[in-house]
Amino acid sequence: MALGERGGWDKSESRYCGVETDFNDDMPHLLSFNLSSGGFDFVVASLMDPNYRPSLMEKDIGGGSHVLPFAGSDLVLSPSQWSSHVVGKISSWIDLDSEDEILRTDSETTLKQEISWASHLSLQACLLPSPKGASCANYARCVNQILQSLNNMQLWLRIPLVKNDDDTTDFIPSGDSWELWNSFRLLCEHHSQLSVALDVLSSLPSANSLGRWFGEPVRAAIIHTDSFLTNARGYPCLSRRHQKLITGFLNHSIQVVISGKLNHGVPSVSLDSALDHTGTNVESSQRHSLRPYLDYIAYLYQRMDPLLEQERFELSYRDFLQSPLQGHNPLFHIISDEFCTIEFSNYYLSFQPLMDNLEAQTYETFEKDSVKYIQYQRAIGNALVDRVPDEEASSLTTVLMVVGAGRGPLVRASLQAAEETGRKLKIYAVEKNPNAVVTLHSLVRLEGWEKTVTIVSCDMRCWDAPEKADILVSELLGSFGDNELSPECLDGAQRFLKQDGISIPSSYTSFIQPVTASKLHNDVIPCLCAQVSPLEAISFSSKCALALQVKSHKDVVHFETAYVVKVHSVARLAPCEPVFTFTHPNFSTKKSNQRYKKLRFEIPSDTGSAMVHGFAGYFDAMLYKDVHLGIEPSTATPNMFSCCASSSVCFVESYFDTGLQIPAWFAIFFPLRTPVCIRPGSPLEVHFWRCCGSTKVWYEWCVASPNPSPVHNSNGRSYWVGL
Amino acid sequence: MALGERGGWDKSESRYCGVETDFNDDMPHLLSFNLSSGGFDFVVASLMDPNYRPSLMEKDIGGGSHVLPFAGSDLVLSPSQWSSHVVGKISSWIDLDSEDEILRTDSETTLKQEISWASHLSLQACLLPSPKGASCANYARCVNQILQSLNNMQLWLRIPLVKNDDDTTDFIPSGDSWELWNSFRLLCEHHSQLSVALDVLSSLPSANSLGRWFGEPVRAAIIHTDSFLTNARGYPCLSRRHQKLITGFLNHSIQVVISGKLNHGVPSVSLDSALDHTGTNVESSQRHSLRPYLDYIAYLYQRMDPLLEQERFELSYRDFLQSPLQGHNPLFHIISDEFCTIEFSNYYLSFQPLMDNLEAQTYETFEKDSVKYIQYQRAIGNALVDRVPDEEASSLTTVLMVVGAGRGPLVRASLQAAEETGRKLKIYAVEKNPNAVVTLHSLVRLEGWEKTVTIVSCDMRCWDAPEKADILVSELLGSFGDNELSPECLDGAQRFLKQDGISIPSSYTSFIQPVTASKLHNDVIPCLCAQVSPLEAISFSSKCALALQVKSHKDVVHFETAYVVKVHSVARLAPCEPVFTFTHPNFSTKKSNQRYKKLRFEIPSDTGSAMVHGFAGYFDAMLYKDVHLGIEPSTATPNMFSCCASSSVCFVESYFDTGLQIPAWFAIFFPLRTPVCIRPGSPLEVHFWRCCGSTKVWYEWCVASPNPSPVHNSNGRSYWVGL
Repeated sequence: MALGERGGWDKSESRYCGVETDFNDDMPHLLSFNLSSGGFDFVVASLMDPNYRPSLMEKDIGGGSHVLPFAGSDLVLSPSQWSSHVVGKISSWIDLDSEDEILRTDSETTLKQEISWASHLSLQACLLPSPKGASCANYARCVNQILQSLNNMQLWLRIPLVKNDDDTTDFIPSGDSWELWNSFRLLCEHHSQLSVALDVLSSLPSANSLGRWFGEPVRAAIIHTDSFLTNARGYPCLSRRHQKLITGFLNHSIQVVISGKLNHGVPSVSLDSALDHTGTNVESSQRHSLRPYLDYIAYLYQRMDPLLEQERFELSYRDFLQSPLQGHNPLFHIISDEFCTIEFSNYYLSFQPLMDNLEAQTYETFEKDSVKYIQYQRAIGNALVDRVPDEEASSLTTVLMVVGAGRGPLVRASLQAAEETGRKLKIYAVEKNPNAVVTLHSLVRLEGWEKTVTIVSCDMRCWDAPEKADILVSELLGSFGDNELSPECLDGAQRFLKQDGISIPSSYTSFIQPVTASKLHNDVIPCLCAQVSPLEAISFSSKCALALQVKSHKDVVHFETAYVVKVHSVARLAPCEPVFTFTHPNFSTKKSNQRYKKLRFEIPSDTGSAMVHGFAGYFDAMLYKDVHLGIEPSTATPNMFSCCASSSVCFVESYFDTGLQIPAWFAIFFPLRTPVCIRPGSPLEVHFWRCCGSTKVWYEWCVASPNPSPVHNSNGRSYWVGL
Repeated sequence: MALGERGGWDKSESRYCGVETDFNDDMPHLLSFNLSSGGFDFVVASLMDPNYRPSLMEKDIGGGSHVLPFAGSDLVLSPSQWSSHVVGKISSWIDLDSEDEILRTDSETTLKQEISWASHLSLQACLLPSPKGASCANYARCVNQILQSLNNMQLWLRIPLVKNDDDTTDFIPSGDSWELWNSFRLLCEHHSQLSVALDVLSSLPSANSLGRWFGEPVRAAIIHTDSFLTNARGYPCLSRRHQKLITGFLNHSIQVVISGKLNHGVPSVSLDSALDHTGTNVESSQRHSLRPYLDYIAYLYQRMDPLLEQERFELSYRDFLQSPLQGHNPLFHIISDEFCTIEFSNYYLSFQPLMDNLEAQTYETFEKDSVKYIQYQRAIGNALVDRVPDEEASSLTTVLMVVGAGRGPLVRASLQAAEETGRKLKIYAVEKNPNAVVTLHSLVRLEGWEKTVTIVSCDMRCWDAPEKADILVSELLGSFGDNELSPECLDGAQRFLKQDGISIPSSYTSFIQPVTASKLHNDVIPCLCAQVSPLEAISFSSKCALALQVKSHKDVVHFETAYVVKVHSVARLAPCEPVFTFTHPNFSTKKSNQRYKKLRFEIPSDTGSAMVHGFAGYFDAMLYKDVHLGIEPSTATPNMFSCCASSSVCFVESYFDTGLQIPAWFAIFFPLRTPVCIRPGSPLEVHFWRCCGSTKVWYEWCVASPNPSPVHNSNGRSYWVGL
């Protein structure tokens, strides 16, 4: 029945709440009791009698074919009931890394039988019990074999949420259960169908330590009833830290599962009144003892801030990698190798499929309220005042050129700045895209700007300007600042800027920070999807070789590509560091747009170890003096739409050739081919290069410490931007 | 003129000795002085004036096109002189990781110019100067760019042979120059054209530390004249440890280069007499001052043990990976899916191309002297005596079955054992391969064994034996013991063995040890050979994507395959540990041939860190009681041919269907997809599985610690042996 409707447009899976049940061979009853009566959306239920052991069975029956003690046939529930309402709970006694060989063999047999059965039932997920000790190699080997040929089912590895700094946990040597998960998934090679179900206990690790999990593939949070406190009225509730964590989970599509016994003396009045209401019903007379816990989670869910318009708009872009390959591969360049419109075309092509369902009203709204042009207007205003003293305001005319004028928003901002400051302006609006120029002409006519604005339908590289400009205004920045060749564009344009002229922006800097981002990393790797039964792997090799071929090919090229993405399910492991800075104008004769930067990141000591899947990249631009614009999380320009918790602010640009607007300046993501594990006290040393050839510009990057990675994207072999 | 002829058949590159020279723009003179007069085979010479700096050039000439100050044109030497006698020495002042940006940029320009020039000259190798500090990321990035599009030229990175346990070396934080090399090659992704030239200094690190380099791609050892001692007669000589090291280098095809000034007061008499001999020649009057050092190296070379017949035979197999794919892919199984002859066919197919040049006499020699059948004869003799007391020797007849009798060597050994011990024998020789059976029949006729030996032309799995055997003799072991399915074969055959019967072999155990083996690892990776200039990488991407695709596909499948190989250029990092043991006969009803073993290796603390490219595997078999046979280095059965230093002993088997003999039981090599760096004090934990399906048997393996690797060969997807 779901936790309720969160304000806005939320279709998140975290609306559904589950309950962990004991083994019961009457599955229809179990389901009806927990769903109809209990109000839960799904059960996490054992599929097999916990007393079953394969080695005992064989003795009893003597080697003949025998029926396994499953909970009834698959017919006791409809297929949709199985797949929508049951998560299979694998027998918790299994221990594949036991020293006892019989137990080990029994465990392997049982694990394979149960998953095979769950797969036959088309369950969406199975919950795997926690590894019993520090060693999990044999368990992981067996799960990895299963994963090679699993249908779409997810395997949720149960991991207790434990990190003791004093190393007191018995079975996890470092005291950090993240290490256990990390070993397991490395052995299973980051398989996309292997995910985590976290056991939330009564005490929680530090915030930094918890933060790591938001970049991991956590699918469920299992909250034990003894992790709840009791409020003044006798009802279960959670500590503030627990509340914050659970809200975080709900905000990241992580489903909650309640586990355990009723631990709270819920006032009998409430129970009685519930009974009174539905007294005649036998089911409801067995009022579900865990209902108060569900009610509390529903309360937390409903209490969350409603989604804002912009957040709703962004939902479908969250953690969705947008491959710049569409923009920067040779084929594409034949179609639109246009100096200044490459960014538009690029966005257009990659955004188009997702945008068909958005209403024109949405774009209109964003356009009006974007702070971007307000910041430009402030910057231009300040520059005009600095350039023309008040006493000359009526006599001096400032020549301003907008390079890449598009549909005209910067022309409008410039005119508004002139009006505001009482300065006289002459504007050249230079635009190469002939479609945008059409709109621009119509705008100028409509607004009556003919005397002030000259439209130049020309590539700024070729334009023979009739005079030099006082101010050069452009908006050529990508998510990583210089990544759409703003430096090269402005170097080309500054020949028609006066020696003492002003460029807006006057400088910009890119930033990166290391992130855990298993979803992004897995989206870079196409799934290995050979369809073979795990128990019978005949003629598996040829299929598999093909799948591996596809996978591996994509691996290298795709892992050497930077992606534009609205990062959401990531863990930011350290504060951003600046990477490359460009300043305009730059009349030096020895200037170069090549850059090289060595960066060091230290993760906080209470984080524990963490996996770095790559780097989130941002920019910050100084438009003019103190007027800046940017998405670097610590200094991001607040978006008027955005009062949400999300730290990366999103702007909207107009895309003139299509008449559509789409969110611009999401972050950029530089993946690592092999994720790097970092430990507190061992800084992460990273090197970034911006390389320029005669026909293209590209980045190379590598990790130098703690363990060197290969240099990514050597010679721009996988990813570049054409000049 | 080469260091001389080493006894035997040596065609090693280490016969050639080079000399490092100062810059000289008269290259013909430089070459004639060092080669004709000095006796060296090649020079390591600077190609560019050491005073050249690109940044200074541009100022002088003003940006126009200018000629670089190279040492003359390419015409001063013939193409073959350039490629055979000159190794290019890249300017040693370059420092790509300097804080000084101008120096860094100059260095990058110079490096690219010089390598481009060397490549134009078709030099075989260039010597890259040592990284100047602990950080080498920018240097490695630039070299990596060059490597992406280099012709066949090798790049030798100069590394001083330094490992201080007290961490006193200034520029290497750990005091271990291996770390510098390791970082550099990781950043360059183990590129096969990047290798090492070691600077041998006067003090040497520990033997374990030195041992690591024998698994690394060391191409040259540069010995400084001040590393030489002076002998009683005033001539230069080397310490015993240096001698041993240099001899090791020469034995591993590592070329020696002499560097430095004359440091020894070589008696003038000797110099004078040299002058007297060739006094009239101007060249020889400039007697080369480094000639005494060359003479000493030639002395070391000539003093090395001559190659034995078996070593000569093995030379062409050294470090040559033999892919079992030929034996174990589906296509092959159609041709020769024969239970017991799979090993022969497999060897036959993969060995054929290399064997055409070997003489029949060679095989004959090996056949006669192999200790293998002597060991079998001893084991059978002991078993006969145990089974039949002396007093019953003339009355009791022992039934002995040879399963997989082939051309008859075990039949012969059995008969000789019976004769030796005075026991009566009845032999069934079971062989499936009809070609071998022809030879077997002819042998029996020729030797007059008709009364004793019954030939059964039958698959042992199907044979309906007329009686049960006292002794079952087989030779079904592979390099890794059970890897050619001896357990499954003998399980099938033991139904015609008496309950108290004896199997020879009675048990066998496999062993592994971690090795540094860069040559083997690089041979698993096909080279990435896109041919693009490093300075102009237009339209590079599509070519490169294709090459990457090929490379990556081969990566996964080939790195999950075990190879038969005569390991030579490897560093054995820790003693062997036992893996799987099988005992025969095994009449238990619950037996399984599945196995699982967890192994821990500790590397000696004075080794330093080391790279594990994979595992060398061996076997040891107990034939009967104390008679064993094996290749595990610490207990290997000595081969009568082998009194060489090589620790892995090589046997020869007869291959009946072809009439050829080839060396069997080389080691096996299990690669790791990503080499693992291990450090002293952090044990290497490795897991091996032997998995059995209904149609095939395969291994899976992984590293669990210090950092977990993926489980290799899941479900036998890349490599298996069919049942």
